[in-house]
Amino acid sequence: MGKGSQYKTIGIIGGMGPAATVDLMNKIIEMTDAGSDQDHIRLLVDSNTRIPDRTAAILHGGASPVPEMLDSARKLESIGADFLIMPCNTAHFFLPYLEQEVGIPFLNMPVETARLINRKGASKAAVLATDGTDRSGLYEKALSDAGIETLYPDEEQQKQLMSVIYDYIKKGITEPDALPAEELRNLTDDLRARGAQVLILACTELPLAFSLLKLDADDVIDATSVLAGAAVRAAGAELKSGSKY
Amino acid sequence: MGKGSQYKTIGIIGGMGPAATVDLMNKIIEMTDAGSDQDHIRLLVDSNTRIPDRTAAILHGGASPVPEMLDSARKLESIGADFLIMPCNTAHFFLPYLEQEVGIPFLNMPVETARLINRKGASKAAVLATDGTDRSGLYEKALSDAGIETLYPDEEQQKQLMSVIYDYIKKGITEPDALPAEELRNLTDDLRARGAQVLILACTELPLAFSLLKLDADDVIDATSVLAGAAVRAAGAELKSGSKY
Repeated sequence: MGKGSQYKTIGIIGGMGPAATVDLMNKIIEMTDAGSDQDHIRLLVDSNTRIPDRTAAILHGGASPVPEMLDSARKLESIGADFLIMPCNTAHFFLPYLEQEVGIPFLNMPVETARLINRKGASKAAVLATDGTDRSGLYEKALSDAGIETLYPDEEQQKQLMSVIYDYIKKGITEPDALPAEELRNLTDDLRARGAQVLILACTELPLAFSLLKLDADDVIDATSVLAGAAVRAAGAELKSGSKY
Repeated sequence: MGKGSQYKTIGIIGGMGPAATVDLMNKIIEMTDAGSDQDHIRLLVDSNTRIPDRTAAILHGGASPVPEMLDSARKLESIGADFLIMPCNTAHFFLPYLEQEVGIPFLNMPVETARLINRKGASKAAVLATDGTDRSGLYEKALSDAGIETLYPDEEQQKQLMSVIYDYIKKGITEPDALPAEELRNLTDDLRARGAQVLILACTELPLAFSLLKLDADDVIDATSVLAGAAVRAAGAELKSGSKY
Protein backbone atom coordinates (compact mmCIF):
# COMPACT_ATOMS: atom_id res chain seq x y z
CA MET A 1 0.00 0.00 0.00
CA GLY A 2 1.56 3.30 -1.10
CA LYS A 3 1.22 6.80 0.33
CA GLY A 4 -1.49 7.59 -2.28
CA SER A 5 -4.22 5.92 -0.21
CA GLN A 6 -3.73 8.52 2.57
CA TYR A 7 -4.29 11.50 0.29
CA LYS A 8 -7.51 13.26 -0.66
CA THR A 9 -8.83 12.57 -4.15
CA ILE A 10 -8.64 15.43 -6.65
CA GLY A 11 -11.51 15.96 -9.12
CA ILE A 12 -10.67 17.73 -12.38
CA ILE A 13 -13.39 19.38 -14.49
CA GLY A 14 -11.50 19.14 -17.78
CA GLY A 15 -11.97 19.34 -21.52
CA MET A 16 -11.36 23.11 -21.44
CA GLY A 17 -9.40 22.20 -23.50
CA PRO A 18 -8.37 18.54 -23.57
CA ALA A 19 -4.64 19.32 -23.95
CA ALA A 20 -4.68 21.73 -20.99
CA THR A 21 -6.34 18.98 -18.93
CA VAL A 22 -3.50 16.57 -19.70
CA ASP A 23 -0.95 19.33 -18.98
CA LEU A 24 -2.45 19.93 -15.51
CA MET A 25 -2.44 16.18 -14.75
CA ASN A 26 1.19 15.96 -15.87
CA LYS A 27 2.16 18.84 -13.60
CA ILE A 28 0.41 17.26 -10.59
CA ILE A 29 2.19 13.93 -11.26
CA GLU A 30 5.61 15.57 -11.78
CA MET A 31 5.31 17.76 -8.67
CA THR A 32 4.29 14.93 -6.32
CA ASP A 33 7.06 13.40 -4.24
CA ALA A 34 6.45 9.74 -5.15
CA GLY A 35 8.57 6.62 -5.45
CA SER A 36 5.98 4.32 -7.08
CA ASP A 37 2.61 4.37 -8.86
CA GLN A 38 0.94 3.83 -5.49
CA ASP A 39 2.53 6.95 -3.96
CA HIS A 40 0.64 9.24 -6.33
CA ILE A 41 -2.60 11.12 -5.66
CA ARG A 42 -5.82 9.60 -7.03
CA LEU A 43 -7.21 11.81 -9.81
CA LEU A 44 -10.80 11.66 -11.06
CA VAL A 45 -11.13 13.47 -14.37
CA ASP A 46 -14.04 14.39 -16.61
CA SER A 47 -12.58 15.74 -19.86
CA ASN A 48 -16.04 17.06 -20.73
CA THR A 49 -15.86 18.33 -24.30
CA ARG A 50 -19.57 19.23 -24.24
CA ILE A 51 -18.77 22.34 -22.21
CA PRO A 52 -19.33 25.30 -24.60
CA ASP A 53 -16.61 27.90 -25.22
CA ARG A 54 -16.18 30.10 -22.13
CA THR A 55 -14.89 33.21 -23.92
CA ALA A 56 -17.80 33.11 -26.40
CA ALA A 57 -20.24 32.97 -23.47
CA ILE A 58 -18.65 35.96 -21.68
CA LEU A 59 -17.96 38.25 -24.64
CA HIS A 60 -20.43 37.26 -27.37
CA GLY A 61 -23.59 35.91 -25.68
CA GLY A 62 -22.76 32.26 -26.52
CA ALA A 63 -24.36 29.27 -24.75
CA SER A 64 -23.72 29.14 -21.01
CA PRO A 65 -21.14 26.54 -19.98
CA VAL A 66 -22.62 26.30 -16.48
CA PRO A 67 -25.03 23.32 -16.98
CA GLU A 68 -22.30 21.06 -18.39
CA MET A 69 -19.73 22.23 -15.82
CA LEU A 70 -22.26 21.40 -13.09
CA ASP A 71 -22.86 17.98 -14.64
CA SER A 72 -19.12 17.25 -14.44
CA ALA A 73 -18.85 18.58 -10.89
CA ARG A 74 -21.74 16.40 -9.69
CA LYS A 75 -20.39 13.31 -11.46
CA LEU A 76 -16.96 13.75 -9.88
CA GLU A 77 -18.49 14.39 -6.45
CA SER A 78 -20.68 11.27 -6.77
CA ILE A 79 -17.67 8.98 -7.32
CA GLY A 80 -15.57 10.36 -4.48
CA ALA A 81 -13.71 13.56 -5.39
CA ASP A 82 -12.84 15.50 -2.21
CA PHE A 83 -12.31 18.83 -3.98
CA LEU A 84 -12.40 20.20 -7.53
CA ILE A 85 -10.07 22.10 -9.86
CA MET A 86 -10.43 23.43 -13.43
CA PRO A 87 -7.53 23.83 -15.92
CA CYS A 88 -9.07 26.87 -17.66
CA ASN A 89 -8.53 30.40 -16.41
CA THR A 90 -11.59 31.83 -18.17
CA ALA A 91 -13.85 29.11 -16.69
CA HIS A 92 -13.29 30.64 -13.24
CA PHE A 93 -15.64 33.47 -14.25
CA PHE A 94 -18.47 30.95 -13.69
CA LEU A 95 -17.18 29.59 -10.39
CA PRO A 96 -19.72 31.45 -8.17
CA TYR A 97 -22.58 29.66 -10.02
CA LEU A 98 -20.94 26.28 -9.42
CA GLU A 99 -19.93 26.77 -5.79
CA GLN A 100 -23.50 27.31 -4.62
CA GLU A 101 -24.68 24.06 -6.27
CA VAL A 102 -21.86 21.65 -5.41
CA GLY A 103 -21.18 20.08 -2.00
CA ILE A 104 -17.38 19.93 -2.22
CA PRO A 105 -14.94 22.87 -2.36
CA PHE A 106 -13.06 24.24 -5.39
CA LEU A 107 -9.46 25.42 -5.50
CA ASN A 108 -9.51 28.70 -7.41
CA MET A 109 -6.63 29.20 -9.91
CA PRO A 110 -6.50 33.04 -9.87
CA VAL A 111 -6.90 33.13 -6.06
CA GLU A 112 -4.15 30.51 -5.53
CA THR A 113 -1.89 32.47 -7.91
CA ALA A 114 -2.49 35.70 -5.98
CA ARG A 115 -1.71 33.87 -2.72
CA LEU A 116 1.58 32.51 -4.06
CA ILE A 117 2.63 35.98 -5.27
CA ASN A 118 1.71 37.39 -1.88
CA ARG A 119 3.88 34.73 -0.17
CA LYS A 120 6.75 35.74 -2.46
CA GLY A 121 6.37 39.30 -1.18
CA ALA A 122 5.66 40.92 -4.55
CA SER A 123 3.22 43.84 -4.73
CA LYS A 124 3.01 44.48 -8.48
CA ALA A 125 2.16 41.72 -10.99
CA ALA A 126 1.68 41.72 -14.76
CA VAL A 127 -1.12 39.54 -16.19
CA LEU A 128 -0.47 37.84 -19.55
CA ALA A 129 -3.78 36.41 -20.69
CA THR A 130 -6.40 36.44 -23.44
CA ASP A 131 -8.64 39.47 -23.95
CA GLY A 132 -11.48 37.41 -22.44
CA THR A 133 -9.66 36.70 -19.17
CA ASP A 134 -8.52 40.34 -18.92
CA ARG A 135 -12.04 41.62 -19.60
CA SER A 136 -13.50 39.31 -16.92
CA GLY A 137 -11.33 41.03 -14.31
CA LEU A 138 -10.68 37.66 -12.63
CA TYR A 139 -6.99 38.20 -11.96
CA GLU A 140 -7.31 41.91 -11.16
CA LYS A 141 -9.91 41.06 -8.47
CA ALA A 142 -7.92 38.16 -6.97
CA LEU A 143 -4.68 40.20 -6.96
CA SER A 144 -6.35 43.27 -5.51
CA ASP A 145 -7.88 41.15 -2.70
CA ALA A 146 -4.31 40.05 -1.88
CA GLY A 147 -3.06 43.66 -1.91
CA ILE A 148 -1.26 43.28 -5.25
CA GLU A 149 -1.39 45.84 -8.05
CA THR A 150 -2.17 44.58 -11.59
CA LEU A 151 -0.33 45.65 -14.74
CA TYR A 152 -1.42 44.75 -18.29
CA PRO A 153 0.52 44.87 -21.56
CA ASP A 154 -0.33 47.97 -23.61
CA GLU A 155 -2.80 47.70 -26.52
CA GLU A 156 -0.19 46.88 -29.19
CA GLN A 157 1.56 44.33 -26.92
CA GLN A 158 -1.77 42.71 -26.05
CA LYS A 159 -2.39 42.17 -29.79
CA GLN A 160 1.04 40.52 -30.10
CA LEU A 161 0.23 38.28 -27.14
CA MET A 162 -3.13 37.23 -28.64
CA SER A 163 -1.28 36.48 -31.88
CA VAL A 164 1.21 34.21 -30.07
CA ILE A 165 -1.73 32.34 -28.50
CA TYR A 166 -4.05 32.08 -31.52
CA ASP A 167 -1.79 32.33 -34.62
CA TYR A 168 1.06 30.20 -33.27
CA ILE A 169 0.53 27.91 -30.26
CA LYS A 170 -3.17 27.01 -30.83
CA LYS A 171 -2.29 26.23 -34.49
CA GLY A 172 0.52 23.93 -33.41
CA ILE A 173 3.39 26.16 -34.59
CA THR A 174 5.98 25.27 -31.96
CA GLU A 175 9.35 25.62 -33.69
CA PRO A 176 11.28 28.16 -31.59
CA ASP A 177 12.64 29.86 -34.73
CA ALA A 178 9.12 30.46 -36.08
CA LEU A 179 7.82 32.18 -32.93
CA PRO A 180 7.96 36.00 -32.53
CA ALA A 181 10.70 35.83 -29.89
CA GLU A 182 11.77 39.48 -30.17
CA GLU A 183 8.23 40.82 -29.58
CA LEU A 184 7.69 38.59 -26.54
CA ARG A 185 11.09 39.50 -25.08
CA ASN A 186 10.38 43.23 -25.52
CA LEU A 187 6.93 42.79 -23.96
CA THR A 188 8.32 41.09 -20.85
CA ASP A 189 11.23 43.55 -20.54
CA ASP A 190 8.81 46.46 -20.82
CA LEU A 191 6.48 45.06 -18.12
CA ARG A 192 9.49 44.67 -15.80
CA ALA A 193 10.61 48.22 -16.58
CA ARG A 194 7.09 49.40 -15.63
CA GLY A 195 7.57 47.80 -12.20
CA ALA A 196 6.16 44.28 -12.53
CA GLN A 197 7.91 42.03 -9.97
CA VAL A 198 6.28 38.90 -11.37
CA LEU A 199 4.75 38.00 -14.75
CA ILE A 200 1.68 35.72 -14.54
CA LEU A 201 1.11 33.33 -17.46
CA ALA A 202 -2.68 33.28 -17.08
CA CYS A 203 -3.46 31.41 -20.30
CA THR A 204 -2.76 27.69 -20.66
CA GLU A 205 -1.09 28.22 -24.09
CA LEU A 206 1.61 30.61 -22.85
CA PRO A 207 3.85 28.31 -20.76
CA LEU A 208 4.70 26.35 -23.93
CA ALA A 209 5.76 29.51 -25.82
CA PHE A 210 7.78 30.77 -22.85
CA SER A 211 9.52 27.44 -22.37
CA LEU A 212 10.33 27.09 -26.09
CA LEU A 213 11.85 30.59 -26.18
CA LYS A 214 13.61 30.13 -22.81
CA LEU A 215 11.76 33.15 -21.42
CA ASP A 216 10.62 31.27 -18.28
CA ALA A 217 12.76 33.22 -15.84
CA ASP A 218 12.39 33.06 -12.04
CA ASP A 219 9.86 35.91 -11.98
CA VAL A 220 7.56 34.12 -14.47
CA ILE A 221 4.62 32.36 -12.76
CA ASP A 222 2.65 29.67 -14.63
CA ALA A 223 -0.90 29.69 -13.23
CA THR A 224 -1.46 26.03 -14.21
CA SER A 225 1.62 25.03 -12.18
CA VAL A 226 0.40 27.14 -9.25
CA LEU A 227 -2.92 25.26 -9.36
CA ALA A 228 -1.11 21.90 -9.61
CA GLY A 229 1.11 22.72 -6.61
CA ALA A 230 -1.85 23.98 -4.54
CA ALA A 231 -3.81 20.80 -5.40
CA VAL A 232 -0.91 18.52 -4.38
CA ARG A 233 -0.70 20.30 -1.00
CA ALA A 234 -4.50 20.36 -0.54
CA ALA A 235 -4.56 16.59 -1.15
CA GLY A 236 -2.08 16.17 1.71
CA ALA A 237 0.92 15.12 -0.38
CA GLU A 238 4.44 16.56 -0.36
CA LEU A 239 5.82 18.57 -3.27
CA LYS A 240 9.11 17.36 -4.73
CA SER A 241 11.94 19.29 -3.13
CA GLY A 242 13.08 22.36 -5.05
CA SER A 243 9.63 23.01 -6.52
CA LYS A 244 9.02 26.65 -7.43
CA TYR A 245 5.29 26.44 -6.73
CA MET B 1 -22.14 22.27 -30.32
CA GLY B 2 -19.13 20.34 -31.60
CA LYS B 3 -18.83 16.82 -32.97
CA GLY B 4 -17.82 15.53 -29.52
CA SER B 5 -21.43 15.31 -28.32
CA GLN B 6 -22.17 12.63 -30.95
CA TYR B 7 -19.39 10.32 -29.79
CA LYS B 8 -19.46 7.60 -27.17
CA THR B 9 -17.73 8.40 -23.88
CA ILE B 10 -14.48 6.55 -23.14
CA GLY B 11 -13.77 5.40 -19.58
CA ILE B 12 -10.11 4.96 -18.61
CA ILE B 13 -9.08 2.81 -15.64
CA GLY B 14 -5.79 4.59 -15.02
CA GLY B 15 -3.10 5.04 -12.44
CA MET B 16 -1.19 2.01 -13.76
CA GLY B 17 0.91 4.14 -13.81
CA PRO B 18 -0.14 7.78 -13.71
CA ALA B 19 2.28 8.81 -16.51
CA ALA B 20 1.07 6.02 -18.82
CA THR B 21 -2.49 7.24 -18.19
CA VAL B 22 -1.60 10.74 -19.34
CA ASP B 23 0.29 9.29 -22.34
CA LEU B 24 -2.82 7.33 -23.45
CA MET B 25 -5.03 10.43 -23.07
CA ASN B 26 -2.52 12.45 -25.11
CA LYS B 27 -2.53 9.87 -27.88
CA ILE B 28 -6.35 9.80 -28.02
CA ILE B 29 -6.44 13.62 -28.22
CA GLU B 30 -3.69 13.81 -30.86
CA MET B 31 -5.24 11.07 -33.04
CA THR B 32 -8.76 12.54 -33.06
CA ASP B 33 -9.66 14.63 -36.10
CA ALA B 34 -10.89 17.75 -34.25
CA GLY B 35 -11.01 21.48 -35.00
CA SER B 36 -12.00 22.71 -31.52
CA ASP B 37 -12.23 21.61 -27.87
CA GLN B 38 -15.85 20.58 -28.52
CA ASP B 39 -14.87 18.21 -31.38
CA HIS B 40 -12.98 15.93 -28.99
CA ILE B 41 -14.23 12.72 -27.35
CA ARG B 42 -15.39 12.95 -23.74
CA LEU B 43 -12.98 11.04 -21.48
CA LEU B 44 -13.82 9.88 -17.96
CA VAL B 45 -10.67 8.91 -16.09
CA ASP B 46 -9.95 7.34 -12.73
CA SER B 47 -6.21 7.54 -12.15
CA ASN B 48 -6.62 5.07 -9.29
CA THR B 49 -3.28 4.84 -7.55
CA ARG B 50 -4.73 2.44 -4.96
CA ILE B 51 -4.51 -0.39 -7.50
CA PRO B 52 -1.67 -2.66 -6.26
CA ASP B 53 1.24 -3.59 -8.55
CA ARG B 54 0.08 -6.02 -11.25
CA THR B 55 3.42 -7.74 -11.84
CA ALA B 56 3.86 -8.38 -8.10
CA ALA B 57 0.40 -9.98 -7.98
CA ILE B 58 1.12 -12.29 -10.95
CA LEU B 59 4.71 -13.30 -10.17
CA HIS B 60 5.16 -12.91 -6.42
CA GLY B 61 1.74 -13.50 -4.77
CA GLY B 62 1.18 -9.78 -4.07
CA ALA B 63 -2.24 -8.28 -3.24
CA SER B 64 -4.84 -8.75 -5.98
CA PRO B 65 -5.51 -5.59 -8.00
CA VAL B 66 -9.01 -6.81 -8.95
CA PRO B 67 -11.07 -5.16 -6.16
CA GLU B 68 -9.67 -1.67 -6.86
CA MET B 69 -9.88 -2.17 -10.65
CA LEU B 70 -13.54 -3.15 -10.20
CA ASP B 71 -14.15 -0.09 -8.03
CA SER B 72 -12.81 2.13 -10.83
CA ALA B 73 -14.80 0.30 -13.50
CA ARG B 74 -18.05 0.67 -11.55
CA LYS B 75 -17.41 4.35 -10.79
CA LEU B 76 -16.76 5.11 -14.47
CA GLU B 77 -19.82 3.12 -15.54
CA SER B 78 -22.00 4.95 -12.99
CA ILE B 79 -21.13 8.38 -14.41
CA GLY B 80 -21.68 7.48 -18.06
CA ALA B 81 -18.71 5.67 -19.63
CA ASP B 82 -19.85 3.66 -22.67
CA PHE B 83 -16.81 1.40 -22.73
CA LEU B 84 -13.54 0.96 -20.81
CA ILE B 85 -9.81 0.84 -21.59
CA MET B 86 -6.70 0.32 -19.44
CA PRO B 87 -3.23 1.81 -20.18
CA CYS B 88 -1.31 -1.11 -18.65
CA ASN B 89 -0.45 -4.25 -20.60
CA THR B 90 0.02 -6.42 -17.52
CA ALA B 91 -3.38 -5.37 -16.12
CA HIS B 92 -5.05 -7.26 -18.98
CA PHE B 93 -4.17 -10.49 -17.21
CA PHE B 94 -7.07 -9.67 -14.83
CA LEU B 95 -9.55 -8.67 -17.54
CA PRO B 96 -11.65 -11.89 -17.38
CA TYR B 97 -12.40 -11.17 -13.69
CA LEU B 98 -13.57 -7.65 -14.53
CA GLU B 99 -15.61 -8.45 -17.62
CA GLN B 100 -17.98 -10.74 -15.74
CA GLU B 101 -18.73 -8.05 -13.12
CA VAL B 102 -19.08 -4.91 -15.24
CA GLY B 103 -22.03 -3.99 -17.48
CA ILE B 104 -20.08 -2.17 -20.21
CA PRO B 105 -17.52 -3.63 -22.62
CA PHE B 106 -13.72 -3.35 -22.51
CA LEU B 107 -11.38 -2.78 -25.46
CA ASN B 108 -8.50 -5.21 -24.99
CA MET B 109 -5.01 -3.84 -25.75
CA PRO B 110 -3.28 -7.14 -26.73
CA VAL B 111 -6.32 -8.24 -28.78
CA GLU B 112 -6.56 -4.89 -30.62
CA THR B 113 -2.81 -5.07 -31.30
CA ALA B 114 -3.14 -8.57 -32.76
CA ARG B 115 -6.05 -7.37 -34.95
CA LEU B 116 -4.03 -4.46 -36.31
CA ILE B 117 -1.08 -6.73 -37.13
CA ASN B 118 -3.48 -9.13 -38.82
CA ARG B 119 -4.89 -6.27 -40.94
CA LYS B 120 -1.32 -5.36 -41.93
CA GLY B 121 -0.90 -8.93 -43.22
CA ALA B 122 2.02 -9.86 -40.97
CA SER B 123 2.26 -13.42 -39.64
CA LYS B 124 5.29 -13.22 -37.33
CA ALA B 125 5.56 -10.64 -34.53
CA ALA B 126 8.18 -9.97 -31.85
CA VAL B 127 6.96 -8.98 -28.38
CA LEU B 128 9.07 -6.46 -26.44
CA ALA B 129 7.71 -6.40 -22.90
CA THR B 130 8.54 -6.95 -19.24
CA ASP B 131 9.18 -10.45 -17.90
CA GLY B 132 5.75 -10.25 -16.23
CA THR B 133 3.85 -9.59 -19.45
CA ASP B 134 5.82 -12.30 -21.27
CA ARG B 135 5.19 -14.82 -18.46
CA SER B 136 1.44 -14.05 -18.49
CA GLY B 137 1.27 -15.19 -22.12
CA LEU B 138 -1.19 -12.36 -22.88
CA TYR B 139 0.33 -11.36 -26.22
CA GLU B 140 1.20 -14.89 -27.28
CA LYS B 141 -2.47 -15.92 -26.78
CA ALA B 142 -3.92 -12.85 -28.57
CA LEU B 143 -1.46 -13.21 -31.48
CA SER B 144 -2.01 -16.95 -31.77
CA ASP B 145 -5.81 -16.41 -31.86
CA ALA B 146 -5.21 -14.08 -34.83
CA GLY B 147 -2.98 -16.66 -36.56
CA ILE B 148 0.24 -14.78 -35.80
CA GLU B 149 3.44 -16.44 -34.55
CA THR B 150 5.19 -14.87 -31.52
CA LEU B 151 8.94 -14.27 -31.21
CA TYR B 152 10.70 -13.16 -28.02
CA PRO B 153 14.17 -11.66 -27.51
CA ASP B 154 16.68 -14.28 -26.30
CA GLU B 155 17.58 -14.44 -22.60
CA GLU B 156 20.48 -11.97 -22.76
CA GLN B 157 18.49 -9.52 -24.89
CA GLN B 158 15.49 -9.77 -22.54
CA LYS B 159 17.80 -8.72 -19.67
CA GLN B 160 18.95 -5.71 -21.72
CA LEU B 161 15.32 -4.80 -22.42
CA MET B 162 14.39 -5.01 -18.73
CA SER B 163 17.40 -2.81 -17.98
CA VAL B 164 16.22 -0.17 -20.48
CA ILE B 165 12.79 -0.19 -18.79
CA TYR B 166 13.84 -0.29 -15.12
CA ASP B 167 17.37 1.19 -14.99
CA TYR B 168 16.79 3.98 -17.50
CA ILE B 169 13.24 5.04 -18.45
CA LYS B 170 11.50 4.35 -15.10
CA LYS B 171 14.35 6.23 -13.36
CA GLY B 172 13.86 9.23 -15.63
CA ILE B 173 17.12 8.83 -17.58
CA THR B 174 15.98 10.14 -20.95
CA GLU B 175 19.07 11.73 -22.53
CA PRO B 176 19.53 9.88 -25.85
CA ASP B 177 23.32 9.72 -25.33
CA ALA B 178 22.91 7.96 -21.97
CA LEU B 179 20.67 5.16 -23.29
CA PRO B 180 22.13 1.81 -24.47
CA ALA B 181 21.38 2.57 -28.13
CA GLU B 182 23.71 -0.07 -29.58
CA GLU B 183 22.14 -2.92 -27.55
CA LEU B 184 18.60 -1.90 -28.51
CA ARG B 185 19.54 -1.56 -32.19
CA ASN B 186 21.19 -5.01 -32.19
CA LEU B 187 18.16 -6.49 -30.43
CA THR B 188 15.71 -5.11 -33.02
CA ASP B 189 17.96 -6.05 -35.96
CA ASP B 190 18.30 -9.57 -34.60
CA LEU B 191 14.52 -10.00 -34.18
CA ARG B 192 14.04 -8.88 -37.79
CA ALA B 193 16.75 -11.29 -38.95
CA ARG B 194 14.85 -14.07 -37.12
CA GLY B 195 11.78 -13.26 -39.24
CA ALA B 196 9.79 -10.72 -37.19
CA GLN B 197 7.71 -8.62 -39.60
CA VAL B 198 6.59 -6.30 -36.80
CA LEU B 199 8.01 -5.39 -33.37
CA ILE B 200 5.37 -4.82 -30.67
CA LEU B 201 6.26 -2.34 -27.92
CA ALA B 202 4.13 -4.04 -25.27
CA CYS B 203 5.35 -2.01 -22.29
CA THR B 204 4.32 1.60 -21.78
CA GLU B 205 7.93 2.66 -21.07
CA LEU B 206 9.37 1.50 -24.39
CA PRO B 207 7.85 3.99 -26.86
CA LEU B 208 9.78 6.79 -25.15
CA ALA B 209 13.12 4.96 -25.48
CA PHE B 210 12.40 4.06 -29.12
CA SER B 211 11.40 7.60 -30.00
CA LEU B 212 14.45 9.12 -28.25
CA LEU B 213 16.79 6.78 -30.12
CA LYS B 214 14.90 7.17 -33.43
CA LEU B 215 14.29 3.41 -33.53
CA ASP B 216 10.54 3.84 -34.18
CA ALA B 217 10.59 2.51 -37.75
CA ASP B 218 7.46 1.61 -39.76
CA ASP B 219 7.46 -1.98 -38.50
CA VAL B 220 7.44 -0.87 -34.84
CA ILE B 221 3.97 -1.04 -33.26
CA ASP B 222 3.24 0.88 -30.03
CA ALA B 223 0.47 -1.00 -28.20
CA THR B 224 -0.66 2.16 -26.36
CA SER B 225 -1.15 3.90 -29.70
CA VAL B 226 -3.04 0.87 -31.05
CA LEU B 227 -5.38 1.08 -28.03
CA ALA B 228 -5.79 4.85 -28.51
CA GLY B 229 -6.65 4.43 -32.20
CA ALA B 230 -9.09 1.59 -31.51
CA ALA B 231 -10.77 3.68 -28.78
CA VAL B 232 -11.14 6.72 -31.10
CA ARG B 233 -12.84 4.50 -33.71
CA ALA B 234 -14.99 2.69 -31.13
CA ALA B 235 -16.21 6.07 -29.86
CA GLY B 236 -17.38 6.89 -33.39
CA ALA B 237 -14.80 9.59 -34.16
CA GLU B 238 -12.49 9.87 -37.18
CA LEU B 239 -8.75 9.37 -36.89
CA LYS B 240 -6.59 12.19 -38.23
CA SER B 241 -5.57 11.38 -41.81
CA GLY B 242 -2.23 9.63 -42.17
CA SER B 243 -2.50 7.88 -38.82
CA LYS B 244 -0.46 4.65 -38.62
CA TYR B 245 -2.93 3.04 -36.16
